[in-house]
Amino acid sequence: MGELINVSALVFDAYGTLFDVHSVSAALEARFPGRGAELSERWRVRQLQYTWLRSLMGRYQDFWRVTGDALETACASLHLRLEPRARDELMQAYLELAPFADVPGALLQLSGYRRAILSNGTPRMLAAVVQRAGLDKDFDAILSVDEVGIFKPHPQAYELAPRHLKASKEEILFVSSNHWDIQGAKAYGFRAAWLNRGGAPAEALGERHNLEVSTLAELAERLKS
Amino acid sequence: MGELINVSALVFDAYGTLFDVHSVSAALEARFPGRGAELSERWRVRQLQYTWLRSLMGRYQDFWRVTGDALETACASLHLRLEPRARDELMQAYLELAPFADVPGALLQLSGYRRAILSNGTPRMLAAVVQRAGLDKDFDAILSVDEVGIFKPHPQAYELAPRHLKASKEEILFVSSNHWDIQGAKAYGFRAAWLNRGGAPAEALGERHNLEVSTLAELAERLKS
Repeated sequence: MGELINVSALVFDAYGTLFDVHSVSAALEARFPGRGAELSERWRVRQLQYTWLRSLMGRYQDFWRVTGDALETACASLHLRLEPRARDELMQAYLELAPFADVPGALLQLSGYRRAILSNGTPRMLAAVVQRAGLDKDFDAILSVDEVGIFKPHPQAYELAPRHLKASKEEILFVSSNHWDIQGAKAYGFRAAWLNRGGAPAEALGERHNLEVSTLAELAERLKS
Repeated sequence: MGELINVSALVFDAYGTLFDVHSVSAALEARFPGRGAELSERWRVRQLQYTWLRSLMGRYQDFWRVTGDALETACASLHLRLEPRARDELMQAYLELAPFADVPGALLQLSGYRRAILSNGTPRMLAAVVQRAGLDKDFDAILSVDEVGIFKPHPQAYELAPRHLKASKEEILFVSSNHWDIQGAKAYGFRAAWLNRGGAPAEALGERHNLEVSTLAELAERLKS
């Protein structure tokens, strides 16, 4: 763990890392019985693709807008009709995501570090889930890429963390369940811990994580040693 | 068609637009019986995602490398073992793609325009499929984003066409079967015709195509009127 010796701050991705998007799938299944899993997959794939494509095209729109657009196209791709009321209800699910069970305890164990969230989500979206989970006091900063108008993995998005935390890149350990996000963070200059909750295969983008763990509790353990 | 009145050059995307990637799926199915379709989908999704992610991260590698990386990760995600010989054989399929049946005739009908290819593919990959199809003389230029080291839909990729064709943006009609590529081209400033061969739903990236056709023959017809 020599390369993590200078780490003084932990910066967490939000969706899939701290907050479980499974409840969104459940809402989709309730609304479109038998199609929830497929629709959830298509929504998530497009949500991410639209962030990358808009960033490359120089046509930023915030994550709330992109998430709604992705939902509409995902439904259209499956020939599912999305009524305005269903749309509102499904979008609402994004404001009510629960944290993974290991999050509150691990954040407490990691309270010796400065802790922040760095997410594609809008400030409003992030505030909603953090408050609902009662985690307001566990973070020194909640950073949204909306401030710079470009999504991860562009370096300008990651640059928000050293700027707001007044820390050097090398002092920051970035934690995400998305391996592409981990590699973006490494390319930028952070240390990075891949929270591989589901045993996903590594993506091939030319960068390596410093650490791989399967729960946040395991991360807390590993940082102690 | 008033907005197309000044068009003097047609710029075509390659994969899925002029060249049919179906033969790649067939090679996958032969190698991994019963898994070809799923593997093909995963390979293609990752191939594109890696071009976008590497472009955003500032970590360009050429399309041959990205395509090979994507194949390996797609196989790993399905727990399929990829032997070096199978890898070579599947990659080779990319150098032997056939043009769609309507391509040679339509290019002839469109010979009153300057015509070019603008693709993510490397010069070697593009030369291989164009020569094999006997289309060398149908194009004034074969342009690869490899020259600028960033993939579509970044504006620098599209900018290759006006530069090499010595034409203004407004004189160029960009043709692609990928709706995200069409919207990238529009954001850059081209006119754009969406060749929607499969009746795909529109993607929501904030730009509109000037024209939608289902075959290249239909495009030739529409440009005459």
